[in-house]
Amino acid sequence: MPPPIALSASSSSSSSFYLLTPPTSSSSQRIPKTPPFSANNRDRDTTLPLTATKTLRFSRRRSMACSAVSIEKETPEAQRPDTFLRESSSSSSVRARFEKMIRDAQDSVCKAIEAADGGGKFKEDVWSRPGGGGGISRVLQDGAVWEKAGVNVSVVYGVMPPEAYRAAKAASADLKPGPVPFFAAGISSVLHPNNPFAPTLHFNYRYFETDSPQDAPGAPRQWWFGGGTDLTPAYIFEEDVKHFHSVQKKTCDKFDPTFYPRFKKWCDDYFYIKHRGERRGLGGIFFDDLNDYDQEMLLSFATECANSVIPAYIPIIEKRKNTPFTDRQKAWQQLRRGRYVEFNLVYDRGTTFGLKTGGRIESILVSLPLTARWEYDHKPEEGSEEWKLLDACINPKEWI
Amino acid sequence: MPPPIALSASSSSSSSFYLLTPPTSSSSQRIPKTPPFSANNRDRDTTLPLTATKTLRFSRRRSMACSAVSIEKETPEAQRPDTFLRESSSSSSVRARFEKMIRDAQDSVCKAIEAADGGGKFKEDVWSRPGGGGGISRVLQDGAVWEKAGVNVSVVYGVMPPEAYRAAKAASADLKPGPVPFFAAGISSVLHPNNPFAPTLHFNYRYFETDSPQDAPGAPRQWWFGGGTDLTPAYIFEEDVKHFHSVQKKTCDKFDPTFYPRFKKWCDDYFYIKHRGERRGLGGIFFDDLNDYDQEMLLSFATECANSVIPAYIPIIEKRKNTPFTDRQKAWQQLRRGRYVEFNLVYDRGTTFGLKTGGRIESILVSLPLTARWEYDHKPEEGSEEWKLLDACINPKEWI
Repeated sequence: MPPPIALSASSSSSSSFYLLTPPTSSSSQRIPKTPPFSANNRDRDTTLPLTATKTLRFSRRRSMACSAVSIEKETPEAQRPDTFLRESSSSSSVRARFEKMIRDAQDSVCKAIEAADGGGKFKEDVWSRPGGGGGISRVLQDGAVWEKAGVNVSVVYGVMPPEAYRAAKAASADLKPGPVPFFAAGISSVLHPNNPFAPTLHFNYRYFETDSPQDAPGAPRQWWFGGGTDLTPAYIFEEDVKHFHSVQKKTCDKFDPTFYPRFKKWCDDYFYIKHRGERRGLGGIFFDDLNDYDQEMLLSFATECANSVIPAYIPIIEKRKNTPFTDRQKAWQQLRRGRYVEFNLVYDRGTTFGLKTGGRIESILVSLPLTARWEYDHKPEEGSEEWKLLDACINPKEWI
Repeated sequence: MPPPIALSASSSSSSSFYLLTPPTSSSSQRIPKTPPFSANNRDRDTTLPLTATKTLRFSRRRSMACSAVSIEKETPEAQRPDTFLRESSSSSSVRARFEKMIRDAQDSVCKAIEAADGGGKFKEDVWSRPGGGGGISRVLQDGAVWEKAGVNVSVVYGVMPPEAYRAAKAASADLKPGPVPFFAAGISSVLHPNNPFAPTLHFNYRYFETDSPQDAPGAPRQWWFGGGTDLTPAYIFEEDVKHFHSVQKKTCDKFDPTFYPRFKKWCDDYFYIKHRGERRGLGGIFFDDLNDYDQEMLLSFATECANSVIPAYIPIIEKRKNTPFTDRQKAWQQLRRGRYVEFNLVYDRGTTFGLKTGGRIESILVSLPLTARWEYDHKPEEGSEEWKLLDACINPKEWI
């Protein structure tokens, strides 16, 4: 199944993954040579018009070091709008229904987290962009159960360079289409508990559409879905991991029996810390570029996946959140959190692309743990509980 | 001053920076498209022959995820050899004298650190590679003054792809030379104290040589120097920063009055966390690709720089190592350590290249702090001591 849009020679997967947080237009000498989307501020027809720079003070210094960076700033909003969609589109459109789904999921996950935490409350930041779109970031920090929990939704209108638009290129080699407007919406969440026996959870579901390329009105529009849910414990409780994977499988099996095995393997492959030869955690499901099924079916699938986050995760938290632990066990969790940081900053495409294109930094980096640790040449004793976790990260298992 | 060798379209600076830790040959589907050096295991004439894979267990799992990665393993050595040079070269060669210089600097810096720490001792790992070269890693962890201090030297024999060798390309456009053997040696160190008023120090000095490209015996050989020393406090004591920069300037001025202003700015530009719009710390000096001066002069300059680490840093540590501090001040230090991690994992070319090419991970990542912290949307109060540090990272100052 080829991705519907090949973004660039250096991108091995679809761009949709990059859109967990809204990229902003920027122009810089230091911009990467082959960004999947270089939000295009040289093109006057962009949907992300350049407006105010961040602040005078910041932009002056930035321009010293990287020559005239202009960043479209998010505008904080006092209230959540009913929708971030800019078109007065029908509420039955896939865009509108996907936005509603992720906002409902954000509400229900935050409610479940606050209930299980029993103390912490989410702080909310709402923002919009002049060109349309916006987002809601919710973060709970220093809770009773979670040291940091972020649940973000965003809706982005952007423009991708025409080279990224495979369909247009395939249509005619001589065609020189203009930039391709796109729409993306997604929910993204990372939940880091305090207790080293309570696992970290990450999930993200996203929907992506392109318009026809400008100057190439005949070229086809595209859409696709991506996402996943994965578990990162510091210690293995086999019953927990089995429960988590069983919920993923059950959700997948409602739609296609090939989904779970394919997406489980995709997850193991994606969350790979190459320089360590180990995965970030014990996996779950991951998929991207999904468009070769009925669109309604995939919308239902993404919805079902998002709705299965609570039943997959909260029972594990309830079992582990109050387990007594030692300083040594906490230090091991902190070392694993260091691995989480390594994966997210070095490999995660959403993070690395967001950082390079001027996305909302605080929304992007809310995925990082509150605290992390790096010890030189730490090796768990063979056969220890720490070693078992590491072994399962190096040698992914079939949990069901 | 153009760099003597342009490594790739995506590399904005010389490759020499990449060689703080020895890259190993690797072949992978996931290897970056434009590595400055793709240590070339397809070429049978490589100086880094493929030998044992890391362990059967590791290599089996690696091959699952990224298809037949083979990594030349470092061999631990029980004793430090007199030299890591493989050629029986004269002890008067620049290679030999540079190796002696960095090994002497490693000894003297470690001795000064242990003396100032008053408790911690360095643990030493010595390794070699079958193809020649090797290194000595020394790490002091959980000391009385430093939570983590790493001082590494390494000597690397490698091969760069011919495209990286500008001189050969310039010589003849039609020439299709073979891989270019290179030699690199360097000392690299990061010192993270416990006390939030005691600053982190980083320094690195390196020397680089290429042979003629294989199959192009007439093409010229190249050499260059690179390095720098920079200071990263969590709180500003102006007298400390002035002292630090004065030592750098005094060292530079002995050789060329243009060095300090140029290398000070280069340092501010290099240690830039683009996504934050701020520098990692308060700078110092940084240079790379330095070959347009007398080679003996530059060897003396690098030696003087390395020798000035102790007088630049230890007096500051002695003044600050026992200053009482609060939890809030420690938390601020930890947030700044988080920025250190962000810079090193996202931007630092030595780190990112080392991770992608299979360098010795523990030597590369010894630069990361023992612990770090990320709070959502943390903003120091305007006018506070924390704010002053942040302001100086955003708006680099002239300290002298």
